Amino acid sequence: MFANTPKPPYYAVIFTNQRAATDPEGYGLTAERMVELAAQQPGFLGVESVRGADGFGITVSYWESEAAIAGWKAHAEHQIARENGRGRWYRAFTTRVAKVERAYSFDTERLDTSTAPSEESSQQ
Amino acid sequence: MFANTPKPPYYAVIFTNQRAATDPEGYGLTAERMVELAAQQPGFLGVESVRGADGFGITVSYWESEAAIAGWKAHAEHQIARENGRGRWYRAFTTRVAKVERAYSFDTERLDTSTAPSEESSQQ
Repeated sequence: MFANTPKPPYYAVIFTNQRAATDPEGYGLTAERMVELAAQQPGFLGVESVRGADGFGITVSYWESEAAIAGWKAHAEHQIARENGRGRWYRAFTTRVAKVERAYSFDTERLDTSTAPSEESSQQ
Repeated sequence: MFANTPKPPYYAVIFTNQRAATDPEGYGLTAERMVELAAQQPGFLGVESVRGADGFGITVSYWESEAAIAGWKAHAEHQIARENGRGRWYRAFTTRVAKVERAYSFDTERLDTSTAPSEESSQQ
């Protein structure tokens, strides 16, 4: 569920949204299809996504470049999905495009305690 | 639950994490306290946070500047919480610091259909 992104810099599209209660099936199918399609786009680096029980969700997708984001935005099937999103599936959303400047990770399963003190791997 | 952020540019700290099953009470209290404390920091612009049923979570906090992020990172109580996070509450996490370059929003409750065609408000 974690995106395995490369060393920064790269781009993040932060999509925060509140689902409407309508059409869970249509929404679910399209959401799956969009992840599948996005993963085939040039410059796609990964995606992380969560939805809470109250219908509030955050999806962050990662991209090599602004051009890669523009390419995905222009994809015909994605355009149709976005149109449905505005009209039907989301009560509200915000999309933010951001340039990732630094990143670091921690994973207990990759911890080698013999190499303390630093247990964080910097991707900066 | 949406952060009411100003016009870009500003900064986002994208914290994606997998909770360990341990200590839900201690974690919950500290998580609440951290949101309360962060909101008092100079340069804090807002926060958006979701956790799924599987324990995977995304929290995005928004900041005026790199200096504001550094100030929050240096906060003594936040440092202690982070230490506990690494040792106890999170199985794994990634933190990414990113500069938000553009943003746009959609909200059905703010829609004025008489002013079509654009139903998205750009914050760019």
